[in-house]
Amino acid sequence: MTRTLIGTLKSEVEKEVTIQGWVDVSRQQGKMAFFDFHDRSGKVQGIVFGKPEVLEIAQKLKAGYVVEVTGNVHSRPEKMRNEKSENGDIELEVTKIEIISEAEPAPFDMDTELNLDTLLDYRPITLRRDHERAIFKVQAEILVAYRNFLNSEGFTEFQAPKLVGGDAEGGAEVFKVKYFKGVEASLATSPQLYKQIMAGVYERVFAVGPTFRAEKSATTRHLSEISMLDLEMAFIKDHTDVISMVTKLMRAIVEHVNKACAAEIVLLDIPLALTPEAFPVMTLREAQALIKKETGVDKTTEPDLEPEDERFLCDYANKNLGSDFVFVTHFPTKKRPFYTHVDPACPEFTRSFDLLFRGLEMCSGGQRVHRYEDLVQRIKDKGLDPDKFSFYLQAFKHGIPPHGGIGMGLERLTAKLCGVVNVKEATLFPRDINRIDTFTSKEQSTEAEI
Amino acid sequence: MTRTLIGTLKSEVEKEVTIQGWVDVSRQQGKMAFFDFHDRSGKVQGIVFGKPEVLEIAQKLKAGYVVEVTGNVHSRPEKMRNEKSENGDIELEVTKIEIISEAEPAPFDMDTELNLDTLLDYRPITLRRDHERAIFKVQAEILVAYRNFLNSEGFTEFQAPKLVGGDAEGGAEVFKVKYFKGVEASLATSPQLYKQIMAGVYERVFAVGPTFRAEKSATTRHLSEISMLDLEMAFIKDHTDVISMVTKLMRAIVEHVNKACAAEIVLLDIPLALTPEAFPVMTLREAQALIKKETGVDKTTEPDLEPEDERFLCDYANKNLGSDFVFVTHFPTKKRPFYTHVDPACPEFTRSFDLLFRGLEMCSGGQRVHRYEDLVQRIKDKGLDPDKFSFYLQAFKHGIPPHGGIGMGLERLTAKLCGVVNVKEATLFPRDINRIDTFTSKEQSTEAEI
Repeated sequence: MTRTLIGTLKSEVEKEVTIQGWVDVSRQQGKMAFFDFHDRSGKVQGIVFGKPEVLEIAQKLKAGYVVEVTGNVHSRPEKMRNEKSENGDIELEVTKIEIISEAEPAPFDMDTELNLDTLLDYRPITLRRDHERAIFKVQAEILVAYRNFLNSEGFTEFQAPKLVGGDAEGGAEVFKVKYFKGVEASLATSPQLYKQIMAGVYERVFAVGPTFRAEKSATTRHLSEISMLDLEMAFIKDHTDVISMVTKLMRAIVEHVNKACAAEIVLLDIPLALTPEAFPVMTLREAQALIKKETGVDKTTEPDLEPEDERFLCDYANKNLGSDFVFVTHFPTKKRPFYTHVDPACPEFTRSFDLLFRGLEMCSGGQRVHRYEDLVQRIKDKGLDPDKFSFYLQAFKHGIPPHGGIGMGLERLTAKLCGVVNVKEATLFPRDINRIDTFTSKEQSTEAEI
Repeated sequence: MTRTLIGTLKSEVEKEVTIQGWVDVSRQQGKMAFFDFHDRSGKVQGIVFGKPEVLEIAQKLKAGYVVEVTGNVHSRPEKMRNEKSENGDIELEVTKIEIISEAEPAPFDMDTELNLDTLLDYRPITLRRDHERAIFKVQAEILVAYRNFLNSEGFTEFQAPKLVGGDAEGGAEVFKVKYFKGVEASLATSPQLYKQIMAGVYERVFAVGPTFRAEKSATTRHLSEISMLDLEMAFIKDHTDVISMVTKLMRAIVEHVNKACAAEIVLLDIPLALTPEAFPVMTLREAQALIKKETGVDKTTEPDLEPEDERFLCDYANKNLGSDFVFVTHFPTKKRPFYTHVDPACPEFTRSFDLLFRGLEMCSGGQRVHRYEDLVQRIKDKGLDPDKFSFYLQAFKHGIPPHGGIGMGLERLTAKLCGVVNVKEATLFPRDINRIDTFTSKEQSTEAEI
């Protein structure tokens, strides 16, 4: 018999159907049995009564069992309807059950709040919870929106390599790989240099893929392996063109997720993100002046924002500016990588920006240096060796337009859109200093909340 | 002035426009200058005459220069039209040129056939050639089609981790990574175990991402880093359900690429792929019997196909069966990984398959073992330790439906769709035993054609 997806059962009332799915809940009441079934498309309640041969099989079913169930779809009587629950106005009168796979019960109650270690130790089964399924549905739809929007704006997707020749960029902690013939390679901390090369090929490019950082910190924000959403666009006048594009991108993502994940948003119980047509934009110094004015704390000479500043600014923008997103621009030249374009109007600051969302830095970006001589000089100024960048520098020696872009962590965006506190909850299989699926050593450190 | 994309100039005839792009060709003829310009959307010819101040700037322009050009769009006189060339019926009468970025000429003629090492040594500029831009446009559109098709079939995309805890699977050569606290991690050779876990969560899942193989061979088929397209689907009756889905997928990809890359297909000069509604399916033993019958060579007891067999079968299918794709099923149980489902009708063979395309194995797939006890036994039979798979095995202990799927190399598919011989030409930044962008050692080995 052809399988009917549970999500379509409403249009099968008074018909016989066969569904395939998992048993979520199983309750026996004398000569009756009640079940909640789910498949990828939805949930439904099933009832067995008056069929001893079916009841005999029904009594074996426990949560996690995979079954094929044939039955008749009925409208529930008015008073039995549960408007809040999916398919709460129908039920399946079961006439046949076939067990496809048996299952052991989970070693904990699937419906309770689990601590992070349990959640991650048992990822293959905790991911089956409604809450987790909702988070990673949102994550999948973020990607749909990200790609659809960028494709519609003339961007071309490309595959950035992850094995790189050396730690040319310096800075972030880098994982080392044993390559061939005793050579040591590195895992890419960013596709930055490749996406600039690709901006010279297709003007507008984007990439989705893992990046790796040997972060020694075990915080709610850090991971060893991050899924990065990168984009780069050429023929810009300055970083404000990138800000405009990213504003449209974030609005497109939020709008798509609100639509495609309506049920998940209800389940996760999160407010819709505030996305005005233009997001607030302030320089670092303006942001720090605002913090001083509002809180009395003087950070007006600090070179960067601290996590508490990011939280303050987002809170302020949410309450006073009608936006959950805030751009902060003009970070100091000293603090930004060599490829960041200096602002000629104030050379100690750069045409760079961070985008903050719900208290957290979501992405970094800006205009890049595009003149060959300037770039070589900037590499030297940072104490790096231009020879190590010879492959990359070809793109500049042979003509590249002004360009800029961003890198954005998919997990952070997912976490903030889903209202989960720890970025690891928004990562399917998070890796950090202590864990690759299971703990990497017996010495388990606790999460530091920074 | 607002930028007009070159691809839209045909609708701007007799209007003044400003374009931004690269100079491809520059020719001076006395008081006239001719240019070919390109941007991400297309190409156009520009002409300067009778404007000494513009001609002065025009004379500086060389290939690679990035410029902003203002001018008037004209229809070309009938006899000056070039129907074969893009925008061959219009030209831009240039009134103003602004140099955005200067460029050194490439150290070789960009239009000649380049040997592989030159092509890769100068990737940042060779990628700007029409031929290379066409290949990676096709690659980007393969991904658009892959995701759109799978999303429409109810698949959910997920991010598979690349840092893995150990070489649990054995088999393929694995790169080792120095993780934290002296722990050694590995780079994933496949997302296999994770996509099976995810099939237990969303039934139908797919992933796109890099996988890593420490392949010591330097052939036209091997890479150290591969972009893999993976999918897994649950509630299948056996491997034939996967074959049906993959057939629809490949037809959707070919159809989309033919449409979205019509100009690129002309430029690459490749025949359209033959994709009948059902692709030929034969068991390994049937394929070997066919080879024996047609060529006289007896390989009827071999455990696998050799490259020459794959080429023969594809050639045969192209000429006799109207298909550029061929499925070969039922590889020996001994030769396939532990998770491959045995065919109960002939237990020395598996419900596995390879999909061949234009002479090359494009993807491997099949039904997977889904019963917990069977899986533990298969792991033991392969001489592996079930304890090392405890994380993965949770998905099976707690109930998973019958499922199967495939993994497919994006670069191989791109190469065969674009008619390039070496998979490295279909890889933006190929890594192999000798190369990570530049050569990793002075000892450069030559490509072995196997």
